[in-house]
Amino acid sequence: MKLCVLGSTGSIGRQTLDVVRSDKDITVTALAALKNIDMITKQIREFRPQICCIYDEEKAAELVKRIENGLIPEAEDMKVVSGMDGLIECAVYPETDTVLVSVVGMIGIKPTIEAIKAGKNICQANKEPIVCAGHIIMPLAKEHGVRFTPVDSEHSAIYQCLAGEKGNKIDKIYLTCSGGPFRGKTLDELKNIKPEDALKHPSWNMGAKITIDSSTLVNKGLEVIEAHYLFDVPADDIIVAVQPGSIVHSMVQFEDGAIKAQLGAPDMRVPIAYALRNEKRAEFNGKKTLSLNDMAEIRFMEPDTETFKGLKLGIDACRTEGSVTTVYNAANEECVAAFLSGKIGYTDIADGIEACMKAHKNIPSPSLEEIFEAEKEARAFIRNKYKL
Amino acid sequence: MKLCVLGSTGSIGRQTLDVVRSDKDITVTALAALKNIDMITKQIREFRPQICCIYDEEKAAELVKRIENGLIPEAEDMKVVSGMDGLIECAVYPETDTVLVSVVGMIGIKPTIEAIKAGKNICQANKEPIVCAGHIIMPLAKEHGVRFTPVDSEHSAIYQCLAGEKGNKIDKIYLTCSGGPFRGKTLDELKNIKPEDALKHPSWNMGAKITIDSSTLVNKGLEVIEAHYLFDVPADDIIVAVQPGSIVHSMVQFEDGAIKAQLGAPDMRVPIAYALRNEKRAEFNGKKTLSLNDMAEIRFMEPDTETFKGLKLGIDACRTEGSVTTVYNAANEECVAAFLSGKIGYTDIADGIEACMKAHKNIPSPSLEEIFEAEKEARAFIRNKYKL
Repeated sequence: MKLCVLGSTGSIGRQTLDVVRSDKDITVTALAALKNIDMITKQIREFRPQICCIYDEEKAAELVKRIENGLIPEAEDMKVVSGMDGLIECAVYPETDTVLVSVVGMIGIKPTIEAIKAGKNICQANKEPIVCAGHIIMPLAKEHGVRFTPVDSEHSAIYQCLAGEKGNKIDKIYLTCSGGPFRGKTLDELKNIKPEDALKHPSWNMGAKITIDSSTLVNKGLEVIEAHYLFDVPADDIIVAVQPGSIVHSMVQFEDGAIKAQLGAPDMRVPIAYALRNEKRAEFNGKKTLSLNDMAEIRFMEPDTETFKGLKLGIDACRTEGSVTTVYNAANEECVAAFLSGKIGYTDIADGIEACMKAHKNIPSPSLEEIFEAEKEARAFIRNKYKL
Repeated sequence: MKLCVLGSTGSIGRQTLDVVRSDKDITVTALAALKNIDMITKQIREFRPQICCIYDEEKAAELVKRIENGLIPEAEDMKVVSGMDGLIECAVYPETDTVLVSVVGMIGIKPTIEAIKAGKNICQANKEPIVCAGHIIMPLAKEHGVRFTPVDSEHSAIYQCLAGEKGNKIDKIYLTCSGGPFRGKTLDELKNIKPEDALKHPSWNMGAKITIDSSTLVNKGLEVIEAHYLFDVPADDIIVAVQPGSIVHSMVQFEDGAIKAQLGAPDMRVPIAYALRNEKRAEFNGKKTLSLNDMAEIRFMEPDTETFKGLKLGIDACRTEGSVTTVYNAANEECVAAFLSGKIGYTDIADGIEACMKAHKNIPSPSLEEIFEAEKEARAFIRNKYKL
């Protein structure tokens, strides 16, 4: 396999390269990062891609200078590109057959679409393309006959449960959810949460934005929308199930009433490798396994969508479909950034999303232009509402 | 599909016919029963098989008389056979393509083998052929290229978890177990258990013998051996996990550490239909589904193999392989019959099996003749030990 990793310096990107390291059948053809040129220099030395994108123009120029000065001899024949054009050039690079998309945010939409059009198989870790443009991307992947495999832990679990079930109708998806660090708190208690409170509880090693999203359950709202498009299941058949401990990664119920679940210790390399290796499993260095004791007590409960209305709003957006899913995502991004910089309170996040969704005039099947228009509108709405 | 049901008047047989009733693609070509000719008369009228075996010679003659007297007009062209020869004639009947084996005990060994040799696909609900002759049957099924699908709830769960996992190595099987009605009791408390105590706790609708086996955990020991042969997994990689409530029907752990589980409400029609329909699922009349509340608390724990040594003995037999698995099964059958008729105590069952296994000189890869020899020897040993 000839692999392009878009977002190679992030958490998923680095773990992807860790999987590649133990698999001789995978060659890295292209790497792309936002701006961390020190880290990508190391990756270039080890994996020797043919093309590399640094999204940030200045940082890209800096990398070019390093190469010209002979500081990275391994990169002598490597092409350096930058910006959205560069990202897309990486995504459609002819030598590549598979693109792992692990950039963060809506930035991944266009490269994902262009990669599909170029016939690349997609391993998708980037939520926003599906959340905002799932109605465009999923039919496109089908049309071009490319494999489209989710990398997210929950969606990979569902995908794994669906292996060998071709033609068997999905009755329900149980999308599991840890409940976040503030499960059990009242709305009043949530109001006083400071960024530092929210950031000290990550159960997986992830960035600040997604840590906040996990605590507000907006992350789960985004995942409901993602599951809806990925598996073509109506919003009302996707049941969010709180499972504290997060060892059950998700479940699928079929029409005969049988349920399949996928469980495991938290290790993102499992879904990454499952996606990369086309459903073939293999052992890892330092493989993590669950013991019977780890499974001693598995509890499931309904989420508290009244206190954590960010989740309810996501389910609403999923039910409505259209540009509102983009509005849900973009309003959340703006609110979380404002919360992290201390400009708004914790519960203002969900309040902001709610107000923004209410104000938005939904477009049922938006074009890419309409999606980015809805994004702008949502961001402007939040900035205006909270005087940011 | 043209189906033969061996054991059509038992619990699995009747539920099989219930599945057939809602599936227009399945025709019943052959039925076989031990001796319940009233029930099979109804089944003949409804499903119109071409051949019918009544194992009991006298009852078979009675059925023939009924037909001759014009009492079953639907059976005018139906052939009636009896005994082991008749059972085998049903199993290899040319019009049949699939044989569901749901007879009870070692009686199913020869018909299973002959059906495989005749190229029939097998849906196996009868444990003993695998327990006693798994080393003969599994390679034979492979050699003849027939599908061999387990119908047992746990083994079907494992089989379902393995769908879509071709080529992926099994790391461990978690064979789940309710723990039986006497879980938590001490050995002294077990000593006083009477047949009526053991018979009032069936969690599935099943016969007296299997109800006792479920309570002593010998049933689980037999299932360990079955899983060993069905899935070619070493005894030490089959972990018996007590899951009170029995909603998790079993789990498979793969070499990447991922676990797949199959869950559901107890409904034997699910594994029966999954086997019959070649892994295609469909809705049932009165389908049973689990709610989130049913899954509110799923606990797993290790079995108490010191108190319930019948399980430990089964695992030992599995580890040893050979004629000892037949001895384990036959000694148990004799002991359970003696317990049910009030001749021995509850803990004498496991003690009897243990003594019998100790006395047996194991034959590593026994022939059919040696298997039936080992059976005789075990039965004689128990009768002699307990002066039955």
